[in-house]
Amino acid sequence: MNEITTLINMELNGEAVDKKETIKRLKPLVNKDTIALAQVDPVVCDIEHNFNKAKIYIEWANELKLGAIVFPELFLMGYPVFDIIDRFPNIVEKNIEYLEKLAKLTGNTKVLIGFCEFNRFYIGKRYFNSVAVLQNKKIEKIIRKTLLPVYSEFNDARYFQSAEFNPTDRIIEIGSNKAAIVICEENWADKDFFETPVYSFDPVDEIVKTQHPDIIINCSSSPTRAKKEQLLNNMLSFVSKKHKTPIVYVNQVGAVDNISFLGSSRCYDEKGKIIARAKSFEEQFFLLSMPTKKPTKNNLNQIFSLPSGLDKSLNEQKAFSLDYEPDLERTYLTIINSIRDYFKKNGFKRAVLGVSGGLDSSVCAVLLADALGNKNVYAVSMPSKITSKESKSDAKELCENLGINYFEIPINEMVEASKNTFNEVFNNVEKSWDGRYTAPLTMDNIQARSRAMILWGISNEFSGTIPIATSDKSELYMGYATINGDMSGGFAPIADVTKTKLFALARWLNANRIQKNAIPRAILNKRPGAELAIDPKTGKPLLAEDALMPYEFLDEIIWRIENLHQTKDEMLKEWFLYEQKNQITNKQKSEWIDKFHKRVQTALFKWSIMPPSPIVDARSINKTEYNQPITSKIKFY
Amino acid sequence: MNEITTLINMELNGEAVDKKETIKRLKPLVNKDTIALAQVDPVVCDIEHNFNKAKIYIEWANELKLGAIVFPELFLMGYPVFDIIDRFPNIVEKNIEYLEKLAKLTGNTKVLIGFCEFNRFYIGKRYFNSVAVLQNKKIEKIIRKTLLPVYSEFNDARYFQSAEFNPTDRIIEIGSNKAAIVICEENWADKDFFETPVYSFDPVDEIVKTQHPDIIINCSSSPTRAKKEQLLNNMLSFVSKKHKTPIVYVNQVGAVDNISFLGSSRCYDEKGKIIARAKSFEEQFFLLSMPTKKPTKNNLNQIFSLPSGLDKSLNEQKAFSLDYEPDLERTYLTIINSIRDYFKKNGFKRAVLGVSGGLDSSVCAVLLADALGNKNVYAVSMPSKITSKESKSDAKELCENLGINYFEIPINEMVEASKNTFNEVFNNVEKSWDGRYTAPLTMDNIQARSRAMILWGISNEFSGTIPIATSDKSELYMGYATINGDMSGGFAPIADVTKTKLFALARWLNANRIQKNAIPRAILNKRPGAELAIDPKTGKPLLAEDALMPYEFLDEIIWRIENLHQTKDEMLKEWFLYEQKNQITNKQKSEWIDKFHKRVQTALFKWSIMPPSPIVDARSINKTEYNQPITSKIKFY
Repeated sequence: MNEITTLINMELNGEAVDKKETIKRLKPLVNKDTIALAQVDPVVCDIEHNFNKAKIYIEWANELKLGAIVFPELFLMGYPVFDIIDRFPNIVEKNIEYLEKLAKLTGNTKVLIGFCEFNRFYIGKRYFNSVAVLQNKKIEKIIRKTLLPVYSEFNDARYFQSAEFNPTDRIIEIGSNKAAIVICEENWADKDFFETPVYSFDPVDEIVKTQHPDIIINCSSSPTRAKKEQLLNNMLSFVSKKHKTPIVYVNQVGAVDNISFLGSSRCYDEKGKIIARAKSFEEQFFLLSMPTKKPTKNNLNQIFSLPSGLDKSLNEQKAFSLDYEPDLERTYLTIINSIRDYFKKNGFKRAVLGVSGGLDSSVCAVLLADALGNKNVYAVSMPSKITSKESKSDAKELCENLGINYFEIPINEMVEASKNTFNEVFNNVEKSWDGRYTAPLTMDNIQARSRAMILWGISNEFSGTIPIATSDKSELYMGYATINGDMSGGFAPIADVTKTKLFALARWLNANRIQKNAIPRAILNKRPGAELAIDPKTGKPLLAEDALMPYEFLDEIIWRIENLHQTKDEMLKEWFLYEQKNQITNKQKSEWIDKFHKRVQTALFKWSIMPPSPIVDARSINKTEYNQPITSKIKFY
Repeated sequence: MNEITTLINMELNGEAVDKKETIKRLKPLVNKDTIALAQVDPVVCDIEHNFNKAKIYIEWANELKLGAIVFPELFLMGYPVFDIIDRFPNIVEKNIEYLEKLAKLTGNTKVLIGFCEFNRFYIGKRYFNSVAVLQNKKIEKIIRKTLLPVYSEFNDARYFQSAEFNPTDRIIEIGSNKAAIVICEENWADKDFFETPVYSFDPVDEIVKTQHPDIIINCSSSPTRAKKEQLLNNMLSFVSKKHKTPIVYVNQVGAVDNISFLGSSRCYDEKGKIIARAKSFEEQFFLLSMPTKKPTKNNLNQIFSLPSGLDKSLNEQKAFSLDYEPDLERTYLTIINSIRDYFKKNGFKRAVLGVSGGLDSSVCAVLLADALGNKNVYAVSMPSKITSKESKSDAKELCENLGINYFEIPINEMVEASKNTFNEVFNNVEKSWDGRYTAPLTMDNIQARSRAMILWGISNEFSGTIPIATSDKSELYMGYATINGDMSGGFAPIADVTKTKLFALARWLNANRIQKNAIPRAILNKRPGAELAIDPKTGKPLLAEDALMPYEFLDEIIWRIENLHQTKDEMLKEWFLYEQKNQITNKQKSEWIDKFHKRVQTALFKWSIMPPSPIVDARSINKTEYNQPITSKIKFY
């Protein structure tokens, strides 16, 4: 099947392709009980693009005379589409028009494809989230989604009407199988699996009890994030076993702004065992021999491996841990693919970033080089008076290792010119206003902002180039990022990765990329600091942990709040990982937690103006999924 | 009742208050059929604050021995609360604890108050959006919202479980009246009033048909925006008349980030006639003599006026018009109140902005002066080489008129220092990269970014100060705003006001503020331009309309897309207002529409990093309500 995928990609690139040989060789191995899982990457609202892709996939399925080919949820429209369909109903008309064109291309092989349907019942939301079943040049059947998620990154109920549920509507014949169709969320309602089910009824349960299907087919567009694969695997395995019915799960790939899709389409047999799995983070024409009553002789099924580690930790993590290993390859691939898709789909090709010799910018540089190619990355080292020699040489070594473009330019002249102007301004403001700070952050920020000005300047001067914001999740929680400075950019690759995980990721990159140890050891060993100000106590650049708190402690607070929703009192009773190696008083602990909550309050504004960044973690402050009014006063009891 | 409101506000400020006289005078005028509408402003999640306010209001209602006092939807928690309750359930526990405390304060006077309730049914969303009925120290009854809006700025279904609807649950006795309680959206489902109802059932209709209440009481938290008052008035009038049942509508005031509430609580009689209305944009303890079967002798009811114009245009506008008059006072008050609440509730007191002598910054300066007091506004004029003498003197005159702090500082030194550094950088980048633009925007943007650096510097240097982003809606649609430049700030007052409306607002300000003509006539008469670049054709600063298209045409495209969802083809068939005075070819029209769509695509990123700004218009691109993936390719047919 890799062969077909390769040929399809050549066709999509407009290359001439000779399909005969492949078809001839594969035909004896497939039959009416073979289906193709079209694990594809749509472009949101680019209906022609999605249509053309679907067309080529369908032609292959036709020529192989398969039982069916199954596309992800909403593929023809692209997912997530958000408010576009509310404002531009003509795009929905276009997806209907192209659905009808697709129907014309079909023969005996059934096509299951997600699209956006007008609600013709004149009550409720204007659209349905639907799957069309196409066969013999006709739209044979339409299945409409009933369970509509509205939580974290999902907002289905905002755009779609929940369809009335009728189990008989969900049944189609594929080969010798009676297949039941469900759409994404509809598989996530098992009352035995979930302790607190969100929905009052379980479509899968109702279908199985009343229709006794041979197989369940799920069309999904399900984003990846930490712990998701484990949950998905456990859930699908549980449900197929419970109902003694195989489940086929078809997922999309590709990324849209903050959201990335894993792919990893798969099939579980009636005992809950995984019997086939497509690749992760890649498009694939995946052939599946359905587990039928009469098993096929020529079983084509393959199980492609998941990103390393994901299959090793199939249970939800119950305590904070610094062992990030089981999620590092997925984290890496999620970010790489997010960068690549954001650039490619939006017509950019090059990135420019500031390298400081610190951890954040170093990891970003590696990720960008891998996502875009090293020649498409430009790293600028922009030392100020505070920048140490080591920082400069570390940054340079990193760039040389990666083979990315590198240039060093001191920002002193810009900073000095600003200083003069600023002093004049401030002295004047002081004539009218009191409340001048005795230790303001002004000069720290001028450095960060001058750097961002240079990066945005390069983006203004050279086509297809965007600057990169290098802020990480721990520092965003603390508001330890400069507005119009390091948090400014066209994309923020690591904004959902905490500092302790970033250290682990850096070590993982050094160990697992073809090119070993691209990140100089000195960068991994130094304690993080913004190098924007001198610590009066040490006479050296202020370290972040001295300004904030130990990252290990900070990241555990974040983890406890995001995953366990703990209050201050609850956290005070817990034994933090940091305490295993460090003695701290309860007073110290209390102060750190208070500091955290206080700083979050002032960080909320910064979260609201962060550029797009991939959601990576199980929970995040990414604005696509977490919305807290800035004007709110939470008292943390 | 103004007297009571004044005394309450004194009590809230901790002042000693003698209530006896007022109570004694009012008591003969009120009875069990009198209710108080508590038109109040909560602070989201500051439960103690909301409790304390409620307490004082309740004490007054108790002492007057009223039938009931009614608070807005979710008042105890604060609205909108968004994802906070998902992440911090302990805040919800706190609001329950304080609800119980409030109950203890009650006597015979019933208290209706919105709060967030845990869903104890263990299925579905974790919370209900509920109204508690408190009386004689007990929680007598709880009413749970069934119709949960998820569209534009509303996301109820994301956080709340839709409650099973039972009409009998909605009935309580108040004095001699059988009152039915509905919550906000539940009044917006009449199938005769709305052509395309969103909901399949109408709670009001069901209650009236089965319970025959004497009166309907609606607890709301309903944001203000253009056309909303007209729709609300028509709808409430229609529904009360249709069901021959009076409706009491209680709304909150105050603003939260992007959302502002009108107040204007009111009562319609059984013929659909308005018989009482509270003030707009102000807290008020509003006494209402309910329209009962036996009318009270002492009818207390007052009808406070709406912002001027709102009552004159009670029908939906069907065509684009430059007659903004009926919405200008509301626009002004919405923005003023949004600025004031954002500053006050977040602990800021002062604003700093750049004044260019252009329309946007001039209108912002007036709005800030009125919202914060002129001494709390600092205007900095930051001319570059391109800035004309007139711009400088116009800016100065404006500031002098307003009495706001003013200082002029040329940015030449900063720009020159940047230029030197930039040239060195660019020449180096060019060694590795092609694609250097021949006419880049770099130098234009350096000016805008240097200015923003100065403003953020003042904010870093002086306590309680935030810089203001002056971008307007027309220019944001076109992406005609500089990242980290004029679109950067802590708050953006006019980001949802189009340019043609801004001109109207400026003239309205000059005519209607106590101080007339604060904005110099020259500013109103000049054609807008950013003064960042010279037009090679004229040798003068480039005018925005020459770079974009005539604002009148641009604003009509925006209006047609936001309100009518028109396609390019549809717009080409329409007769634009601009064409009444200007002959243009169809080719020109087509080019402008194409330019619009093309520029929107690149503006999407800018929308995503805009600071908080009040929603003013009927439809907007404010991220609280409009979400379009940046990575999306809309083809406008």
